Amino acid sequence: MRVIRTASLQEMNEVGAQYLLGAMHTQHRTNIAITAGSTPKGVYDVMIPLVKDKDYFDNVHYYNFDEIPFKGEDGYGVTMTNLNKLYFDPANISREKIHVLDWTNYETQDERIAEDGGLDFVLLGVGADGHFCGNLPGTTKFGDLTSRVDEDATPDMVDVLLSEVGGVEEKRPDFYVTMGPKSIMQIKKLVMIANGKAKAGIVKKLVEGVVTEDVPATLLTTHPDFTLIVDAEAAALL
Amino acid sequence: MRVIRTASLQEMNEVGAQYLLGAMHTQHRTNIAITAGSTPKGVYDVMIPLVKDKDYFDNVHYYNFDEIPFKGEDGYGVTMTNLNKLYFDPANISREKIHVLDWTNYETQDERIAEDGGLDFVLLGVGADGHFCGNLPGTTKFGDLTSRVDEDATPDMVDVLLSEVGGVEEKRPDFYVTMGPKSIMQIKKLVMIANGKAKAGIVKKLVEGVVTEDVPATLLTTHPDFTLIVDAEAAALL
Amino acid sequence: MRVIRTASLQEMNEVGAQYLLGAMHTQHRTNIAITAGSTPKGVYDVMIPLVKDKDYFDNVHYYNFDEIPFKGEDGYGVTMTNLNKLYFDPANISREKIHVLDWTNYETQDERIAEDGGLDFVLLGVGADGHFCGNLPGTTKFGDLTSRVDEDATPDMVDVLLSEVGGVEEKRPDFYVTMGPKSIMQIKKLVMIANGKAKAGIVKKLVEGVVTEDVPATLLTTHPDFTLIVDAEAAALL
Amino acid sequence: MRVIRTASLQEMNEVGAQYLLGAMHTQHRTNIAITAGSTPKGVYDVMIPLVKDKDYFDNVHYYNFDEIPFKGEDGYGVTMTNLNKLYFDPANISREKIHVLDWTNYETQDERIAEDGGLDFVLLGVGADGHFCGNLPGTTKFGDLTSRVDEDATPDMVDVLLSEVGGVEEKRPDFYVTMGPKSIMQIKKLVMIANGKAKAGIVKKLVEGVVTEDVPATLLTTHPDFTLIVDAEAAALL
Repeated sequence: MRVIRTASLQEMNEVGAQYLLGAMHTQHRTNIAITAGSTPKGVYDVMIPLVKDKDYFDNVHYYNFDEIPFKGEDGYGVTMTNLNKLYFDPANISREKIHVLDWTNYETQDERIAEDGGLDFVLLGVGADGHFCGNLPGTTKFGDLTSRVDEDATPDMVDVLLSEVGGVEEKRPDFYVTMGPKSIMQIKKLVMIANGKAKAGIVKKLVEGVVTEDVPATLLTTHPDFTLIVDAEAAALL
Repeated sequence: MRVIRTASLQEMNEVGAQYLLGAMHTQHRTNIAITAGSTPKGVYDVMIPLVKDKDYFDNVHYYNFDEIPFKGEDGYGVTMTNLNKLYFDPANISREKIHVLDWTNYETQDERIAEDGGLDFVLLGVGADGHFCGNLPGTTKFGDLTSRVDEDATPDMVDVLLSEVGGVEEKRPDFYVTMGPKSIMQIKKLVMIANGKAKAGIVKKLVEGVVTEDVPATLLTTHPDFTLIVDAEAAALL
Repeated sequence: MRVIRTASLQEMNEVGAQYLLGAMHTQHRTNIAITAGSTPKGVYDVMIPLVKDKDYFDNVHYYNFDEIPFKGEDGYGVTMTNLNKLYFDPANISREKIHVLDWTNYETQDERIAEDGGLDFVLLGVGADGHFCGNLPGTTKFGDLTSRVDEDATPDMVDVLLSEVGGVEEKRPDFYVTMGPKSIMQIKKLVMIANGKAKAGIVKKLVEGVVTEDVPATLLTTHPDFTLIVDAEAAALL
Repeated sequence: MRVIRTASLQEMNEVGAQYLLGAMHTQHRTNIAITAGSTPKGVYDVMIPLVKDKDYFDNVHYYNFDEIPFKGEDGYGVTMTNLNKLYFDPANISREKIHVLDWTNYETQDERIAEDGGLDFVLLGVGADGHFCGNLPGTTKFGDLTSRVDEDATPDMVDVLLSEVGGVEEKRPDFYVTMGPKSIMQIKKLVMIANGKAKAGIVKKLVEGVVTEDVPATLLTTHPDFTLIVDAEAAALL
């Protein structure tokens, strides 16, 4: 495990982009999974002008690693909608290069990735509760591959799902899908970003090195190529 | 995780040797850790004539991953004594290439390995109880690096230690040292061998994919390059 | 460049097999190219019982790197006929795993390999004149990719082609196809075997390190992962 | 070979920096060689603020690949003086991380690099005449390792040496040292940058794929992981 302590959110974004760009510059096809959410926005803002319409990145294939449906809708779910807005659309990434995980194909996600040669790189965020992807405390086990998490998985899952669709009850789904801890551990290189005071506690736990299913992201600290990039606020308790 | 089901103990030994030899044929230095015990004896028997006095394996550096002292003795402990007998002596491996872990230096083992560029490969056995290296159920946590395990770690540890020194009470140590689960997970390529009926239960658990500290080896199933090689008896419950 | 000096032809065969088997034991798909001819026969004889009907090698995809047509015949050419006899048939390799290069598709060979993720490994032989694959002195340039070599490429090419089809004039083709020096250099790991007194001269040249188009194989000595395995007779002039 | 056509010198500099930074972000030690001269100045200008005083790059070890002595002086030569000014000093790189090649140790350069585990990455420039490092047409052979080039190597070498020391005759040395083509080919990943109209001709030759000792850099096009980054002017003849 490598810990990179940056002095600011902007530096965290730049180092995150350095990792992503390094992973994208390969002779042959490279498969990378990227995270949605608020944390990576700054990373993508750094990357968009460097990636947009650059045909030398045609070797890059993108994957999302979780998805939450909008109830009653057939199109993209919450994650892909967010990734489209944050990165895929502004960076003008060809749809042919985006391998969408959703509720129709999650059962074959791990198998399809293996057929594609495995994932080479993933950019992850982490929750204050230690969740990564859709692996929330209480919902998934370390040994899980890609799976479905239902609204009764934890006492507050209904609220989580409601929050994910912006509080609109009619759009609230009763499940989501996510690559599991074991799926993510199969990836060759893992990079996680964390910023802000709210993440100082989880960052401390990750660095201290206890590994427990109660804090799912702690598993990743055992991976042979795991890097955690934090800003000064997230590093405050180190 | 890759599972290799072989038809016989001899085939398991040969495939184990294929992995080891493949890891040893590199342009530059390669660092490998190997296991003592009864399981790997057949693998080493395959390898000894192929390795002995072959200067084209001078690039290989060897590491042991646990050690149990003989009480009152200063020389090699149980593990190195066994490895010397099974492999290092009959294969005539230069002492300069063997990086001994013992009770005098275990606190810097992970740091020294990192300075050497990390371990590239490890050959592991597994106990019927799911232990690997000296990581027995109840003694170590997934997040542990190399550490010391004392005689009061579990109720039956005194018996375990007595057994390791051949039942000779005067030689029974009150502790041992071992690379921890997190240390082993840092290695680039993990290969585990298991044979015989007594291992069928643990093999089943490993393949089923539950990951729990109660069965320490289950953590290894999340590693991005983990191979389990079993004979027909060990595969009986798959 | 790594030079492995073995004491006998049998040891050369075994070390060649060690390299091949090491390259075949991977978590995901691996792409390997293998050589026809008399030199590798002993390597394949070592490998066949270890590979035949072993489903744990289903991840291996095979490629041939040159081909000589039998004039007037539509089936396999000289190289594939030889590989079928020496290895593919006795090892019972599925035809789905064999990616045939021939006169109908050589113009897209490099492109197809790139789409498959590149070749990971090649086992090569070498001629007393320094040729490898179909890259004979005078026929190909270091910068060539897969190409066609015609009967007028060199003064004795007609004789070479006649010899390749067993001296039967009616079967003599007027060209062959081969991956070029640049194609082979793109492969991640190169292993070359050479045995017998007749190869002592070329082995000396390879080890001395002069690189010249007059001795095509000398280019390979500049590759970052090139290993030359020789027996005692081929090493006689070192 | 991968060719990256950028729209401007600034974009070439940024992509060059992306490659370097990608190569520097590793879990363990990484060994990189970098080029002096005018071409890389913009790359280093991008990198300096990203690298200066960042302890997360303590894993990076730097190497120079050629050196020209100032006659009668014992200190740094032309290359190191230039690298100090362009990058090592403004980026505040610790001297402990800089492995200097000069006239006192060039004979063991290849051996020392091998002992350090090999070079992982090199950033190269290219001359209009196709030279790279100190490998000028007529001075070195493809098969050369690190060697010394004397003032009588080519008819205009005296002028070249004079030019390198700023035209000051008293400082003109009668030789220089350089890693050879074969030394550079041993590096895992090669990246070359070229910008400006004066480089359009050599870029065309590199892309066309002829490999000839008369244009030394053409050898690099056969390397399995070679990337050429050019700006619009250097790409004008493609």
